[in-house]
Parts: sequence; structure tokens; C-alpha cells
Amino acid sequence: MAQHVVVIGGVALGPKAACRFKRLEPGSRVTMIDQSDVISYGGCGIPYYVSGDVSDEVQLRTTSFHMERSPEFFKAVKDIDVRTLTRATSIDRDRKQVHIRNVVTGETDVLDYDKLVIATGATPRKLGLPGEDLDGVSYVSTPHDAVRIRERVTRGEVGSAVIVGAGFIGLEMAEAFADMWGIDTTVVEITGQIMPRLVSPAMAQMGQHHMEEQGVQFHFGETVERIEGEDGKVTRVVTSKRTLDADVVIIAAGVVPSSDLAREAGLNVHDRGGVFVDEHMRTSDPDIYAGGDCAIIRHLITDKPFFLPLGSMANRQGRVIGNNLAGENATFDGATGSFVVKMFETSMAGSGLSLDAAKDAGFDAFSVLLTQMDRAHFYPTKDLMTLELVVEKPTRRVLGIQGFGTSGDATVGRINAVAALLKFHATIDDIANMEFAYSPPFASAMDIVNTLGNLADNVLRGINRGMGPDGFVELWNNRDADDCFFLDCRELPNAEPCMERNPGRWHNVPQGEIYQRLDEIPRDKRIVLVCNTGARSYEAQIMLDASGYDDVVNVQGGMAALKKYGVEI
Amino acid sequence: MAQHVVVIGGVALGPKAACRFKRLEPGSRVTMIDQSDVISYGGCGIPYYVSGDVSDEVQLRTTSFHMERSPEFFKAVKDIDVRTLTRATSIDRDRKQVHIRNVVTGETDVLDYDKLVIATGATPRKLGLPGEDLDGVSYVSTPHDAVRIRERVTRGEVGSAVIVGAGFIGLEMAEAFADMWGIDTTVVEITGQIMPRLVSPAMAQMGQHHMEEQGVQFHFGETVERIEGEDGKVTRVVTSKRTLDADVVIIAAGVVPSSDLAREAGLNVHDRGGVFVDEHMRTSDPDIYAGGDCAIIRHLITDKPFFLPLGSMANRQGRVIGNNLAGENATFDGATGSFVVKMFETSMAGSGLSLDAAKDAGFDAFSVLLTQMDRAHFYPTKDLMTLELVVEKPTRRVLGIQGFGTSGDATVGRINAVAALLKFHATIDDIANMEFAYSPPFASAMDIVNTLGNLADNVLRGINRGMGPDGFVELWNNRDADDCFFLDCRELPNAEPCMERNPGRWHNVPQGEIYQRLDEIPRDKRIVLVCNTGARSYEAQIMLDASGYDDVVNVQGGMAALKKYGVEI
Repeated sequence: MAQHVVVIGGVALGPKAACRFKRLEPGSRVTMIDQSDVISYGGCGIPYYVSGDVSDEVQLRTTSFHMERSPEFFKAVKDIDVRTLTRATSIDRDRKQVHIRNVVTGETDVLDYDKLVIATGATPRKLGLPGEDLDGVSYVSTPHDAVRIRERVTRGEVGSAVIVGAGFIGLEMAEAFADMWGIDTTVVEITGQIMPRLVSPAMAQMGQHHMEEQGVQFHFGETVERIEGEDGKVTRVVTSKRTLDADVVIIAAGVVPSSDLAREAGLNVHDRGGVFVDEHMRTSDPDIYAGGDCAIIRHLITDKPFFLPLGSMANRQGRVIGNNLAGENATFDGATGSFVVKMFETSMAGSGLSLDAAKDAGFDAFSVLLTQMDRAHFYPTKDLMTLELVVEKPTRRVLGIQGFGTSGDATVGRINAVAALLKFHATIDDIANMEFAYSPPFASAMDIVNTLGNLADNVLRGINRGMGPDGFVELWNNRDADDCFFLDCRELPNAEPCMERNPGRWHNVPQGEIYQRLDEIPRDKRIVLVCNTGARSYEAQIMLDASGYDDVVNVQGGMAALKKYGVEI
Repeated sequence: MAQHVVVIGGVALGPKAACRFKRLEPGSRVTMIDQSDVISYGGCGIPYYVSGDVSDEVQLRTTSFHMERSPEFFKAVKDIDVRTLTRATSIDRDRKQVHIRNVVTGETDVLDYDKLVIATGATPRKLGLPGEDLDGVSYVSTPHDAVRIRERVTRGEVGSAVIVGAGFIGLEMAEAFADMWGIDTTVVEITGQIMPRLVSPAMAQMGQHHMEEQGVQFHFGETVERIEGEDGKVTRVVTSKRTLDADVVIIAAGVVPSSDLAREAGLNVHDRGGVFVDEHMRTSDPDIYAGGDCAIIRHLITDKPFFLPLGSMANRQGRVIGNNLAGENATFDGATGSFVVKMFETSMAGSGLSLDAAKDAGFDAFSVLLTQMDRAHFYPTKDLMTLELVVEKPTRRVLGIQGFGTSGDATVGRINAVAALLKFHATIDDIANMEFAYSPPFASAMDIVNTLGNLADNVLRGINRGMGPDGFVELWNNRDADDCFFLDCRELPNAEPCMERNPGRWHNVPQGEIYQRLDEIPRDKRIVLVCNTGARSYEAQIMLDASGYDDVVNVQGGMAALKKYGVEI
């Protein structure tokens, strides 16, 4: 019998679930409501509309064949009834009814449902600060936000922008302002790094360094205390440490799942918000599904509840719900939290857990950091890529991978490939032996991912004792204590400039000459080996180990990683 | 106790195994011999040296830190003894000795070994044709070949080139000649397509069409009968159908594993060449390892013996052998045969089995072809990508994936990610729900790979009955029989030019108007639905199905796929 499905929320998961269900059961009836006047838009495209990469806001809510996904479109093309400006005020699960109200007219109505889909999404986290409601303070959530921000920019009213939050959206907005419009852009972040908890401090520093080179300023470990304005318009941001001029302020401090409606209906909801669903995307009521930004899924590494508000999640979960509305038993097993963010000429991506996140989740974890060419070193478009692998020590299981590189497609390609293995409890041996399509324009014969696995293996064996650029900097800053012997094992012409800048502190013995020149290398100091990317310093370390030295370390990623990190020797 | 390891062959696997072993056991002794005067080179870089992308041939045999991997380098940096111009003439397994001979002086010697590594590689397949030894006829194997070919080109002596074989190397050489040097380039291939058995005829046609647009000519289904010359220099190639002018001829007809030495030593060798090894890369003699281009591994989809002569295989196998020489138990479980080839502005990649290969291996298989944007359709650098998924019908298991697109990194990234799943017996449901890092510059919210899985699911359900561009062309070429109704379900302005060019043959009802305009669509003909990329034609098909039409198909990939295929409507 034809059933009536009601979908609350019309942005991403809602339309997907509705359309999939209609394709499977064309004779059924679907009503989709949304409290806004715009539906089915790609909110993740907002930074690219603000930057001008996307010329017209309507493009964010058109199909790939250039039709606007309006209520009329859904009716004609998908046979779905859409009511915009319509809020669901309560769910009566016993009667299987949704009470709705038109947010403009105040008119109320009641919809009977056979099956219900909650796709209420999330709202930007508000800081609750004085001045947060000033004109010019924006969140990054709806096409209305997008239009408002860009109008202000194109009118030439924005000389300086302050962004609160250095996560994806904050960084994307920083690029949009600084790159395309040349706006003086400052990011204020409460933690000590960009992309907190998603990448290691060392990798974060590399991304930060690149963005600083492009003119973005960062202030870490600062909280915004108030936002000030004149005549109702924002002019300044006052943080715990300084006052910043601001013609526009972007609050990008994360989002909060909109799950009050579900909670009030007595569904199982997480303490901090988010509707719990099972692997079939069913809530605690078998006739009600939920998904997308308002739902809590399973983290495939920690096995714990996971909030991952991404359009890609909504789309895939929407299809699963669409299938199950049609009586099937489709599953969505969870996610490892893959992400990617473009930052000017570089990109940062990851999946699974960062080292900090792994330790917090209780894993006995370590990580290795590798900087190597992203394709054959003789191929002209090659460039350095940095990858970090997070590993559970006792089991060799890979818990996560993060990457940073100039070719975004190449970087995210590596991350996606390793991500595919994560839920199969892949070990570093799987990574070391992973098959990558090989041809010089695309990969090295020993691809950087394979080398990353090999590096983790060598570290676990104890034959490669490395440190990242952060560890090196700590030793280097303390160089005058003279308890470390910094040994550059590149050829002399490469090492010479560093030696001249640091007389008596920076030494050189090329790796191929180490056995012949052991007398130049002291046995009473820690030997800190550095080369271009870490390959030769590892070899040198093995040679010194074999020669009876007992405190030798090498810098993973070498001078290449240090340079990306912003260190000049 | 320090053992002596002898390695026969110094190109890829040999050096890798030797170096890894030396790092694990610095006190041991390793002797590596090679019959050539050059060792440790990246033969796969030859096309890029010929094209000029790589300026100096020495770059193909330097490390990433610009040191030439010469015998002196191996001695100083790796503590490995190398003897070049030295051929192994026989292996005495009882005495554990290798008999060697200097190929210049004829001097012979005997090397005792504790463990032996056979890394004799492969040689280009010769055609045994009259004229194959003429000056100007080359294979693509060693740096010497590379230098010879490029010298001829840079001297301006090459106006026309004929390449025999349309596999990777043939296509890479075709690009090198035609793109960088403007040479009149013709490829002769015995089968009916480029990349035979690696991709479907439809995908091959897309690549061929692109290369033809760049000026490369192809002749399929032709064999070369003889090569002719004047004064000892090549001038013409005579095929079974024509005579082609040629100042240079490249024989790229595959390679043959060099396993005679192993066979003569009584080791287990494949009938058609190639040393059998177990998962530890051990031959039938536990003291002898083999790997790289001379070895036969296991195909992870068919479970059958597999010959995969790639530098990436050699490197990873070499490390496994290095570990095992040091007494470990490392494994190399096989490969799914991932590949990628750059063809001018496009790239083609794949892993696992093509549809033909799957059927030949006895699978009850089908495939789906999808053309979709490689990133958010509103992001400016988006472009069309085509993917084909090969599936075992009864089990839904994915047997292979192939791709073609303009962003090589993006294409190969998708292939590598799916390849990672293949050995876990992934099904189309795993593909449909695969996690890809999402951000508009890199992926769609429903990534093309997810859509590919969805498409396969819909085809198996029977709700999407599609055909590829090859199937369409067959029907279209027979359009005057008038038993098919070609229905363009895009908007009128998109369809109009095709209607004007094909009056009475090409019809239009936009998908959103189908229910209202059913009277324009005949019920006594097969309805062939076409849209931009296949999304709307699929929706239209569901609408016609729901309206009682019983013979409706839609063209997968739509006009986009047809255009790449070279079809103009």
C-alpha cells in the first residue's frame, strides 16, 4: 500500500532520502518540510561563493544540469511535496503525526505519517558574547549568510576580517577573504593550533606557516571576550590578549546538532545533542529515521558515538534511509571521519585519529611523520608531501593518517586509500605493502604511503629513532647547552650555508663518508642527524649504531619538513 | 654469523633487497652483479626522458637527493659490492655457488652464497620480424635505449614514428613523440583497442579519441609483417593492411621474464617464463629468493599466477626479501594489478579485472559505466570523470574498477581507494558507502565512486537498465530501422541542436514534463533515453516504467560519455 513519508528538513539528507525512496516506490507519497525559504543547498560551498570561485549563489542549489532545486523542481521532477517556511513544532509518536507551523503566517497544521525522517541538521555554535548580534557578525551556514557576507565584501566595505575558529570552515573563510579579496584577515583560535585534534601540532604548524606566508594572521590560545561596534555595525573584536579591527567577523566555532524536536518526542538523544541511530539509521522509534547533521553515528576506530556533520555523510545516509523506507534493511556502519581542507596552494586531509585523539581514546599510540616526493623524484611536477601515520603500538594497527601537500588531489587520494583500509583493522604491514597504481607522473616506485608504513615498522623495531620538526626545534632552541651534536649528513655544498650561519653548532659529514670520519663525531653527546627528507639520516643512524654510538636520533622529514614547519637553520 | 648474500640483477628489486638486508644486518656481506654497465635506474621514466620532461638521463638513476646510484655509491653509502658487466651463467644449488662471467673480458669467477636473490628482470618481447634489427628500431627498456631514441629525435632526424603496441609503454611513447616533438606518430595494435584487456572497449575508445585529437593515429587489428630500411636505417613499417613511413620504430609489445637461469638451475618456473615464488618471495629452493619482473606472483582476484612487471612491485617485493634474508617471515600476498597511464591531458587507470578479463576468468560478471563530475559541480576546476565498475553478479563482489579523467591525480586517487578494498572481497554496497574526504574542491557530496556503487546496485535491481556508449552507437547507427525512439530528456535548448540535425529521429521531452507528455512517447518502440550524464535519463526511465512502458533503456554517462567516445549526434 502506498505510504506517506514525512521528511523534516530539506537541505541534504532530507531530499536524498525522499528522492531515493520515491525512485524505489514511485506510487508513494512524500512530504518534505523546511523552516527556511531555501532548500537543498550545498552549504559547504559557501566559502567558495564568498571568494568568488562560485559566481552565483544559486549555483549552490542547482543540480549538475543547472536546474534550481526549488519546491517546484521537487514536485515536477521528483513528485515530492515541499512546504518551505514550515517548522515542525512537535511529533506525536502515538498518533504518528507531526505538528507544523508556518513561520511567517503562524498557521498550523498536522501531517499524518507512516514513516518519519528527522533531518533537522545543525546550527552554528553561538558564542554568547556581547556584540555577537552586531551587523557584520556572521555564521557560515545558509545561503543567506553567504549572500550577506559577499555583498559586504563586494561593496568594498571590508578592509579587515576576524575569524573565530581555526577548523575547516574558519580556514576556508580565511582563504576566501585573503586570497581573492586581499582583505587583512586574522584567525583567533582558543586552542594552540589550526585543525585542533584533527592533525598533530607539527602538521598544523606546517599549514599555519603556509597560510601566514599568504598573509593570514593567527592568534592561538586566545578567547574572544566581546565584539564591539559603532552604529550597530561591528568594528572591533576584543580577545583575552588584544583588540583587533574588524569590518566583518565570522564565527566558525563548530555546529550543534538540532535535536530538540527529537528529544521532546522522547527519542534517544545524546547528552550534548544529536539523535542516536542504529546501523539502519533508525532512531529508538522504529518508524522514525534520522541522519545527517542532527544524528550521532559510530566511530569505526573508537567504536564510540561520533558527530560528523558533513554533506557527504548526509548524502550516503540519506540513501540508506531511502532504501529502508522502502522496506529494505540497508546499513550505514559508521565513519572514520575523513576530511580535507584546501588552504591556498596546499591542502590538509586525514582520516581516523590524530595522535592526540588516539591517546585520549585510550590507545597506546605513537606516530611517524614523513616528508617525501608525491611522485617520481625525476618527474617535473613532483613536490613534497608530508604524511603522518598514527599506530597502536602493541597491535601495529593503524588508527589514523593525516597529510599535507601542494597537490590536493594527490594528498587526498593517499588519505582516501588508507581510509578504505582503516575499518578492516589494517596494520602498518598492510600500509607498507599497499598497492598503488604506479607511473612516474603519479607515484614513486615506492610510494610515499608505502614508505610511511616502512618508517613506522622501522621505528617500532627501534632501528629508526626519529623525531618530528617539533622535537628538533626543542633541541635546537637549546643548542647552546651543547649536549647535542647536530650532524648534517648531506653533501658539503648543501650543509655549508647552515654551518656558516651556525659556527660550531652545525656539523657536516656526508652519509657516504661516515665510516671513514667517525673521529669527527663525538661519543659523549647526543647525535642529532639531519638530511633532506630523512632517508639519509636514517642510513647514517644505522651506521652510527653499528659503530657503537648509543644516543643517535634523526629528524623525520629532514630539512624539507623543517622548512615547511617554518624553521630556518 | 655474518652471511654472504648474492644478488643477481641490479635494477630495481635487487638493490632494494640488498639495501634493506644491509640495514637490518649491517655486518653482513652483499654482492650484487648485473650484466649491464648501468644499474639501479628507473626504466619507467624513459618516455619522460624521450619527451624532454626529464632533461638528463642520469636523473633516472639518481637518488632523490641527486646522487648517482653507481657501484661506488652502493659501496660508500650502502656497503654493497657491485660488479657490473657481469653475467650469472649458472647456479650450482648443491654447492651454493653462482658462476659468473664478465661480458667484456670473458673472465669467469665463482661466488659462494649463503642466500641468493634472483632479480634478473625481463626483456622486451621481440617480434622476430624481418628488419627488426635495423638502425632506428628500438625497445623501451634500458637507459641506453632512452639515449639512443632521444639523440635521434633531437638531431631532427625523426619526422614520423611508428609504435607497435598500444599498452602503457606504447601510449606513453606516443605522447612523448607527438606532444613534445610534434612527430607524426602512428600506433599499430594487433587487438581492437588501446590498453587491451585492461579496460573495456568503451573506455579504451574514450582514451583513443583523446589521443587522436592530439594527433596520434591508430591502426587496430593489424599485425606488423616486416620493417624495411635503406642503408641499414629504418624507413617503413609494412603491416597486414598498409605501409607506414617511419624514421623510428618502437617495439612496445610487452616483456618476457628472464627466468632461464632459474629454470636451468632446476627451480620451479612457469611454462611461459617467470619464477614461481611463495608468499615469502622464496623460490622452490628455500635459500633462493626471486622477485620483480622475473617472478610470478598471485592475482588477488583470480587467485591465479600473475605476471606484473612494474617497478612498484619490485620495490615492495624487494623489501620483503630483504627482511626475509635477515631471518624474518615477511609476506607479499599478491596484487590486484593497479595501473595508471598518462595520455596527454587525460589519464587512464584501473585495478582488478576488466569485464572481458573477468569473464575470461570464469566470473559471471557485468559492468556499469558512469560519467560524473570529479568534484562539486559548482567548483570551478570540476571536470568529467568516467569510471567503470566490474561486478560479480551473484555475489555483488567488486572484481575491478577502471577510470578515465582529466585530473590524473583525482582519477588514480579513486582507483587506489577502491583497489585497497578489492582484496577484502568488497561488494558494491561497500563501494556505495565508501568514505571519501569531502570538500567541494575535491569531491562531490555523493562522490563519483559512491554513485558508481549506487548505479551498480540499481542495475542489479533492474530499476536502471542502461547501456554504455558502445551499445548506444549500435542502436543509433541502425536508427533508420525506426524501431527505437531516441528521447532526449534534457531541457529543450539542450536538445534542440540534436533535433535539428536529426529531424524525426531525435525527440525531446524534459524529464520534469514526462508525466504530462506521455502521449508524445510511443508505446510500440523501444525508448532510448539520453540526458547529460545519465542521472535524468535514469529518473525518466523510472517514470516511464511507472507509466506502464515495457521497453525502456537509458544511456549511462549520457551525452558526456558519448562526446568522450567521439560520437556527434
